[in-house]
Amino acid sequence: MNEGGGITAPEGFVCGYARAGLRRAPRNDIALIYSERPCAAAAVFTSNRLKAASIEVSARHLLLSKFTLNAVVINSGNANALTGKEGVRDAERMCKETARLLHVDTTRVAVASTGIIGVPLPMEKVLAGIRSAARRLSASPSAASKAAEAILTTDRVKKETSLTASLSDGRNFTLGGMTKGSGMISPDMQGLHATTLGFITTDAPVERRYLQSCLDKCVEDTYNMVNIDGDMSTNDSIIVMANGRIGGPVVRKDSEFQEALHRLLSSMARMVAMDGEGETRMLEVHVEGARNREVARKAALAVVHSTLVKCAVFGGDPNIGRIASALGASGCNINFSRLSVKIGDVPVIESGKVMMERKRAAAAMRARTVAITIYLNSGQSEAVAYGSDLSYDYVRINSAYST
Amino acid sequence: MNEGGGITAPEGFVCGYARAGLRRAPRNDIALIYSERPCAAAAVFTSNRLKAASIEVSARHLLLSKFTLNAVVINSGNANALTGKEGVRDAERMCKETARLLHVDTTRVAVASTGIIGVPLPMEKVLAGIRSAARRLSASPSAASKAAEAILTTDRVKKETSLTASLSDGRNFTLGGMTKGSGMISPDMQGLHATTLGFITTDAPVERRYLQSCLDKCVEDTYNMVNIDGDMSTNDSIIVMANGRIGGPVVRKDSEFQEALHRLLSSMARMVAMDGEGETRMLEVHVEGARNREVARKAALAVVHSTLVKCAVFGGDPNIGRIASALGASGCNINFSRLSVKIGDVPVIESGKVMMERKRAAAAMRARTVAITIYLNSGQSEAVAYGSDLSYDYVRINSAYST
Repeated sequence: MNEGGGITAPEGFVCGYARAGLRRAPRNDIALIYSERPCAAAAVFTSNRLKAASIEVSARHLLLSKFTLNAVVINSGNANALTGKEGVRDAERMCKETARLLHVDTTRVAVASTGIIGVPLPMEKVLAGIRSAARRLSASPSAASKAAEAILTTDRVKKETSLTASLSDGRNFTLGGMTKGSGMISPDMQGLHATTLGFITTDAPVERRYLQSCLDKCVEDTYNMVNIDGDMSTNDSIIVMANGRIGGPVVRKDSEFQEALHRLLSSMARMVAMDGEGETRMLEVHVEGARNREVARKAALAVVHSTLVKCAVFGGDPNIGRIASALGASGCNINFSRLSVKIGDVPVIESGKVMMERKRAAAAMRARTVAITIYLNSGQSEAVAYGSDLSYDYVRINSAYST
Repeated sequence: MNEGGGITAPEGFVCGYARAGLRRAPRNDIALIYSERPCAAAAVFTSNRLKAASIEVSARHLLLSKFTLNAVVINSGNANALTGKEGVRDAERMCKETARLLHVDTTRVAVASTGIIGVPLPMEKVLAGIRSAARRLSASPSAASKAAEAILTTDRVKKETSLTASLSDGRNFTLGGMTKGSGMISPDMQGLHATTLGFITTDAPVERRYLQSCLDKCVEDTYNMVNIDGDMSTNDSIIVMANGRIGGPVVRKDSEFQEALHRLLSSMARMVAMDGEGETRMLEVHVEGARNREVARKAALAVVHSTLVKCAVFGGDPNIGRIASALGASGCNINFSRLSVKIGDVPVIESGKVMMERKRAAAAMRARTVAITIYLNSGQSEAVAYGSDLSYDYVRINSAYST
């Protein structure tokens, strides 16, 4: 990964930011991403039945533009969800104003929102913010960095990254990304029908359907394996824009591209898990030897999602029974006599029996990142899920969010 | 409900208790329930794939005895789960010792355990405790009360109740119950295959299969609608014993009996929700106007289970969007334009639009019991789910449980 790079690291992308006053804290809350060259686009959105108005509008624009985008406009501080027809009209106006300022078609603008649910957007402020952001468009790392800040809500740190890789034919390309997400994190994003937000830019020329298929596969193993609190958001969205600025033939299939996108998304998803609301320790659950991928994913998510396991991780308490109980409740048909578990590199369950050196296990539970490895010994499939502990601070942050 | 009555309120039941030393705190931790007359028995156990050894043994005894029980032996402080074949042998020894002391067949004794998972039972202590409990058998309300204390773990208060009702033919009968449960509460108990424990005694003569079918129906709407933390236990068990001491013909179908059992279980389930770990406010979610029962139950449980809704209830914060988002993530196909929601008697969403008097809504969120009513306006079905808020204390209690 490059240090310091973000969404403007690939050629041909600029971004803007502004303080529209949508948040109580005096922070930037509007971001714009723009490529003069039209981009092949792919996206995944939340599978929550209550979808934000911004998602409804972005999905429609992607269909109408045949998955072509020039810009994305993003606001924090307000989710524009549960806001009825007025919300849809507001999201549409955000795109329209962006399109007008950038001289592109409205359907080539997507929109994303994050923040409180059920409160109308203060459109005067939002539109003024978009105009101010459009006046500041820049390819500088510092602009990318400020845009990455503008999309945060309860996040403690901004999350951006970039990497440069080579296509199979040797052409170099760059991927840049910014993301946010701290609470209400239990994404289950599905192709066009994924409150974490993620925006990825690349200067590689990638065919639209292939871009979507790469995104679908990569999200499945990265963002969709992160679970902070089990509450799936109304606003989860990941949008990729590929402007093809490096030139040459369009990529229709290239494992190098897919692998690079996977690395970028994996790094972004870990940043989200690392910054879970109130997080003091990160939790990584590896499942190995599962009968199939489905079992591996379900089992890993069940453990990372267990409230009691999260509390034990917060306390650094090797309460092994809770891990086994979460597996038992996962819905997977687990053979417990074959189950082995390690915390870090300390064996705690072997062939269904709890046997551990309590001190070493307790020390492993107090690592900055607690890695739990579960061996099901029933097949060849594996999966990894990411989460965080459940701390006093999570409760503090979430007990008075709207007031 | 009677005041002060418990499992010995029905005729012909006695109980004992002892301090075997299975818990750090110097409290009673062994309870015995005994009826000299053999009882028709019914039971439901957890659907967690990892079932405690006590459940395996109780299920086998019920099958072998054709659902006939004279006694139940219960220990707290240790779940006897994830303890392998030794655990099963230990549970069997608990039944055997109880059977020997009470001069009944071993298969007519059921066993239940609650406490830490993955630690072998200290059998010397357990057996000494059973002997001591058997020496103290008594029908007094105070013995019932001490038995109810002996089955607690992190519970703050003992939970017992009784009621007297009449069968359709006019015969009076009594139901008595004791229960425990505070954390790891997300029961999904199914007939013979429910760490909340519940024990119900009655002097009505009830046919075995009818008793099981009444229990199945009542648990579905009571215990299985309680959710403290979403973590389904390895030990959930509810056992009903009917000794027929009031005499007369056996009850094969009687809505009066079923209704009385439902009232008792409903009261017991609410005691569990009311004593959720770290609970400061109880949460009751009513869903009305659902297309069918399944949707009503799923929607109610989704809201009561939402970590973010629980935090908002703790903070007394009317964060309405979280309720709608939890409904959207429930997997139910909800028509949000028809959705109306009240907190207490304060309307907060009407036909899909957030419209509330913030002060009144906030006041309603600060009630001792927060009642959220969700009107789906799509049918005639309804359901109620019970839970508690998520407080600093929940995290404190659960972050160092095993150490």
